[in-house]
Amino acid sequence: MEVQGYAAYKAGGQLEKFTYTLEPPGYDEVLIEVKYCGICHSDLSMLDNDWGMTSYPFVPGHEVIGTVAEIGAGVTKVKSGDTVGLGWSSGSCMTCEQCMSGNHNLCAKSEGTVVGRYGGFADKVKAREAWTIPLPEGLDPAKAGPLYCGGITVFNPFVQLNVKPTDSVAIVGIGGLGHMAIMFAAKWGCEVTAFSTSSNKEAEVREMGAHHFVNTSEKGAVANLANQFDMILVTVNVMLPWAEYINALRPKGTLHFVGAAPEVSSGIFPLLTGQKSISASPLGSPFTTDLMLHFAKRHHINPITELYPLAEVNTAIEKLRNGKPKYRLVLEI
Amino acid sequence: MEVQGYAAYKAGGQLEKFTYTLEPPGYDEVLIEVKYCGICHSDLSMLDNDWGMTSYPFVPGHEVIGTVAEIGAGVTKVKSGDTVGLGWSSGSCMTCEQCMSGNHNLCAKSEGTVVGRYGGFADKVKAREAWTIPLPEGLDPAKAGPLYCGGITVFNPFVQLNVKPTDSVAIVGIGGLGHMAIMFAAKWGCEVTAFSTSSNKEAEVREMGAHHFVNTSEKGAVANLANQFDMILVTVNVMLPWAEYINALRPKGTLHFVGAAPEVSSGIFPLLTGQKSISASPLGSPFTTDLMLHFAKRHHINPITELYPLAEVNTAIEKLRNGKPKYRLVLEI
Repeated sequence: MEVQGYAAYKAGGQLEKFTYTLEPPGYDEVLIEVKYCGICHSDLSMLDNDWGMTSYPFVPGHEVIGTVAEIGAGVTKVKSGDTVGLGWSSGSCMTCEQCMSGNHNLCAKSEGTVVGRYGGFADKVKAREAWTIPLPEGLDPAKAGPLYCGGITVFNPFVQLNVKPTDSVAIVGIGGLGHMAIMFAAKWGCEVTAFSTSSNKEAEVREMGAHHFVNTSEKGAVANLANQFDMILVTVNVMLPWAEYINALRPKGTLHFVGAAPEVSSGIFPLLTGQKSISASPLGSPFTTDLMLHFAKRHHINPITELYPLAEVNTAIEKLRNGKPKYRLVLEI
Repeated sequence: MEVQGYAAYKAGGQLEKFTYTLEPPGYDEVLIEVKYCGICHSDLSMLDNDWGMTSYPFVPGHEVIGTVAEIGAGVTKVKSGDTVGLGWSSGSCMTCEQCMSGNHNLCAKSEGTVVGRYGGFADKVKAREAWTIPLPEGLDPAKAGPLYCGGITVFNPFVQLNVKPTDSVAIVGIGGLGHMAIMFAAKWGCEVTAFSTSSNKEAEVREMGAHHFVNTSEKGAVANLANQFDMILVTVNVMLPWAEYINALRPKGTLHFVGAAPEVSSGIFPLLTGQKSISASPLGSPFTTDLMLHFAKRHHINPITELYPLAEVNTAIEKLRNGKPKYRLVLEI
């Protein structure tokens, strides 16, 4: 069948209309008619070939919400007409140790929705059944796309690190990822502190559920905090004075990265004396994604989004590249 | 009362006979008649004032085994004549958040047995009741001293990190700490790999319970391991190529430090993609120490020690400083 999408033909290039042919869904595959697709910062990294793994023409898009159009012979979890979502991964091997233990997101053979295949800035996209995750009724399809990549990326640490509702949590960087992290942390029951360089975000961030706001562009703002947080969740991809952040952790606290900051280093003594750790995680498994979606539904958590028609995809990408979207961009297909 | 011990009068100095006066035990204090005292690498660091917190005359010794000689009015846990041990800490505040939650070892006001007071290279030493931990019958008093500092330091991570008997664990450095770690890991049920620069230790290390031996002085020995270990426990205090060690971790694995290596650094991507972490811990709490002692008793785990009379303390210290003791030195008082 023919698919209408938008593709870039070179690193950093403009997106242009692009038509390609897709085989019907295989045994365990699902064909999704795309309704909405979020724009994630990693679409930009892939577009620019920052990670050296982009093939062109490149069709971005891995925060898909759509309707099941067709299913393979072996598919039982979803049926035609169901509203589903698709995130960074469109498949995994299903039988390795990680897949078999519920950690499909750590499968070494997982398939990226936009890696070596065409993504969701198009009217159709395919995925394996296991990674096609139904959108619970009650969540807004126009806003839910970002939950499937950015959302699960910041929700996953709460599950993986056994964050407790009695914990004190700091979220570093209040953008596409961070604003969802604030909402999850608040509804998780935690004491929530937002770290941002933009003091003008304070009111909004408190509205999202933050109890405290630290303006990190003020000199000494982090250095003066000590023994405060059980988890500091870093959503930014820049270098920060990590020693100050480790000092701001309570005993047994964790400095946890979900943004691709280049590097982290620490003296051993500050870690050792307070039994602290440094950790990182990628997106979550399909099971954890499902937990997140139901958590989001129960607590009325919707990403804050700006909607663009697909035809304005280049404008939207420029906004992500240069501006500060509030807070996540979504294309209407 | 008068105490006979050995003290150094300056950084790195020889130990000389030293007599001092000790007040009778206070309300919650225990006076211990010292029988044996292990020599820990941190006695050496304190002797040399490496950490800038040594006061002279300095009496080392914080792996004490002895007999309760006298107790304060409020002491109920031990009585005169009991065989007890004492490790790095001789007291903690008992009422801060850490003490109240069972993490007395993380108390910011904990008192070091050899910090600002006189340690166990002496015929008597005092400690708070909470940190005076009975030696279970069946453990050899002449060998058990090292369990109270080195032993609990390497046992504690198994409890804190919830290491499972099905995990694969590597122990880096087979010295005073490492040899106890091998024995604990083996009896914990784990698959155990020893990392050592000394290939001549292989037979002994397998006797201790290691299933595999990696000679890290061979080029590429660590670099060639990938996706192998759930925990790599670092007992050495030197810099190693940490990126290779992180690569050797399985997904969700931890590079854990109990030795005071100067620093650790890592790119975020290798941590993030495999959901790996870097962590560290100090000695354990009195409760965890008690768990360890009973575990050691049940599994007949004794540190491998060389015994010296107290009068030969300087010879023993020189051996620790220059040689490679097998594996822990103990003074008979």
